[in-house]
Amino acid sequence: MDWRELDSTQCSVARTADVIGDGWTVLVLRDLFNGVHRFDDLTAHLGIARNVLTRRLAALVEHGVIVKVPYQEPGRRERHEYRLTRAGRDLLPVVLAMLAWGDAHRAGEDGPPMVVEHRECGSPVHVEMRCAEGHLVEPSSGLRSVPGPGARRAG
Amino acid sequence: MDWRELDSTQCSVARTADVIGDGWTVLVLRDLFNGVHRFDDLTAHLGIARNVLTRRLAALVEHGVIVKVPYQEPGRRERHEYRLTRAGRDLLPVVLAMLAWGDAHRAGEDGPPMVVEHRECGSPVHVEMRCAEGHLVEPSSGLRSVPGPGARRAG
Repeated sequence: MDWRELDSTQCSVARTADVIGDGWTVLVLRDLFNGVHRFDDLTAHLGIARNVLTRRLAALVEHGVIVKVPYQEPGRRERHEYRLTRAGRDLLPVVLAMLAWGDAHRAGEDGPPMVVEHRECGSPVHVEMRCAEGHLVEPSSGLRSVPGPGARRAG
Repeated sequence: MDWRELDSTQCSVARTADVIGDGWTVLVLRDLFNGVHRFDDLTAHLGIARNVLTRRLAALVEHGVIVKVPYQEPGRRERHEYRLTRAGRDLLPVVLAMLAWGDAHRAGEDGPPMVVEHRECGSPVHVEMRCAEGHLVEPSSGLRSVPGPGARRAG
């Protein structure tokens, strides 16, 4: 089934975005990760107002997360589609962590609306926290934040 | 150095939140993870308007991410502090993934403002994507979203 055929609102990313994020921006990224690149496809799948989508895309371009790439279909005028940059693709763990939270805490009785698989082996992909010593770190286990080289004292 | 002594604006979570999230909500969660639990401490550290913080905290309580717990200091009236629930602690990978993105794409010349360590062994903690077969999955390598049991066709 094509991603665009699925109800965009039945999604753990969306449910997590309701809690933590600017919903539209996260959902635009989610759709880009899922291969929806064109303005009209995004408006149709997301049910987002065109002016709102225009603003979100412009902000993502400005942040260097996506680039605007021209394309032209035969007999039609040139249009643009949007592609994730390296920085954009690096947001995937954020979106995947939001997906996992939504799966765990906002999934309905039917279970997760979407499963992300490793293309090579077909197994589901998850996000985990691990320390440099290789220990798997649970959210409830001890983490501690310490100032890094770029820290600055509050003034 | 106490977390509250550090400049709240020098933070990769903040920088990522500028791009992807409702900044204040993410920053409130970040401060709760870092042990800032009281209303006055949050307003002081975040530089957030009291009415805005009140609204964000109320929403997080409603979402089941935090709970309001009474406390009383000698000779003063009862007040409240805010504690993460299990669902709230489970948002840690989201915040940590945002931290990593900000470190990678928004750190200044001085490097990351904050390092999150595993309390037990002191090594830095990161977020990684891994499939059920145990393969480490890079953002650029192939991932594919497939409908899960809770998917619904767009209509």
